Amino acid sequence: MSITLASLPENYRALVFGAGGGLGGAFVKALKEDPRCGTLNAVSRRRLDIPGVRTLTADFNDPGTIAEAAQSAAADGPLHLVIAATGVLHDEAGLQPEKSWRDLDADRLAELMRINLIGPALIARYTLDHLARHHDKAVWAALSARVGSISDNRLGGWHGYRASKAALNQLIRTLSIELARKAPGAVCIGLHPGTVDTPLSAPFQRNVPEGKLFAPDYSAERLLGVIDAVTPAVTGQVFDWAGQPVAP
Amino acid sequence: MSITLASLPENYRALVFGAGGGLGGAFVKALKEDPRCGTLNAVSRRRLDIPGVRTLTADFNDPGTIAEAAQSAAADGPLHLVIAATGVLHDEAGLQPEKSWRDLDADRLAELMRINLIGPALIARYTLDHLARHHDKAVWAALSARVGSISDNRLGGWHGYRASKAALNQLIRTLSIELARKAPGAVCIGLHPGTVDTPLSAPFQRNVPEGKLFAPDYSAERLLGVIDAVTPAVTGQVFDWAGQPVAP
Repeated sequence: MSITLASLPENYRALVFGAGGGLGGAFVKALKEDPRCGTLNAVSRRRLDIPGVRTLTADFNDPGTIAEAAQSAAADGPLHLVIAATGVLHDEAGLQPEKSWRDLDADRLAELMRINLIGPALIARYTLDHLARHHDKAVWAALSARVGSISDNRLGGWHGYRASKAALNQLIRTLSIELARKAPGAVCIGLHPGTVDTPLSAPFQRNVPEGKLFAPDYSAERLLGVIDAVTPAVTGQVFDWAGQPVAP
Repeated sequence: MSITLASLPENYRALVFGAGGGLGGAFVKALKEDPRCGTLNAVSRRRLDIPGVRTLTADFNDPGTIAEAAQSAAADGPLHLVIAATGVLHDEAGLQPEKSWRDLDADRLAELMRINLIGPALIARYTLDHLARHHDKAVWAALSARVGSISDNRLGGWHGYRASKAALNQLIRTLSIELARKAPGAVCIGLHPGTVDTPLSAPFQRNVPEGKLFAPDYSAERLLGVIDAVTPAVTGQVFDWAGQPVAP
């Protein structure tokens, strides 16, 4: 299966952050195969080597590197698609999701916020000025998650991850309002990828219903389909892989 | 005007964090006048001297001090009311709300999250185990803000503050689910105080409609009225000073 972003201008310019991750890598792979894609930029912490793709490095701890990556990606002209495919739920250093309020920890919360909120905020800070501003469509999208939905929160747990994604969803909404004033053809959205078979979800795949654990390629292609379908009328919202809005 | 929390047990035990702030101090003042209040504990960074009130100190940067304050407040028995009346929008060191994505700054975002999310999370971590668990009513409340509402976000701006309060609202929802399992009479809510005449709102009072800039005493009394009115059926939500729910 391959996708074509028919709603973006011919030879559109795309920029993917988090290209070293499972889902970020799958976005790059899919976009590379889209004949409409003119320039594809892939940003990761460590330099990747992907033929046909302009690979760049940036580190959230050094905002200047994000600015440089964005500037370099927009060297040929404004961007039509920016995807912030970054995020963390747990890591090997013991960053485990909370099961109870007794697990709440200041350092863990700060780290989740640094990666899941401040990272995308810095990407927005340095890329939104490079987004195409004519009336053609342009999309700025960040990876969110359904568990960030407050109204959908029925099970509890994962306090910090949920809070970080709710914060991201509010940031997306706030950015969308400013973007609508400056670029009427632009759309700013969050994306819920489903449960994707990556290291992020690995410890939690046990309870995923049959057929609902997605390969990164499948999730990325579905989300690119969502990106192709959205219009400025729905800016500021979060959509799942099937194109359904996720309530705040 | 004075209030009585008639829905809480006689001689209820209350604990207010942020008692050194405008609204926190007003909560303490109002609770002190409630004849049903048996024990009143007021926590602040610098020790206060309020006759008839057990004053304690705690610092968010040292979670152990929050644990000690909670333990000390619950020495006579479990608590019926905990109010996290802490929060920051700007400070004198130049922490100003963003007007544009160009103002997004990693350190500023981290500081907002530290105070508006991680602070209340640590208060929850160390006080929820001390909340009364019988079927009598008990309330855990944190100061939120209407601008934290994602669905109500129409003007944009204040990116970091909005995101921090959305994160707090999701934390409150998550805590409420766990609390409902452990203490069926307990209620966990967020509170929108309106625009209160304190240093927090001082630079932004220009656009407040006539009659809508509240004295801290007025806001605190209205919010205590809300605390008196809520039941476990509405746990996990945010309410404004008039008792109206604020959508996520």
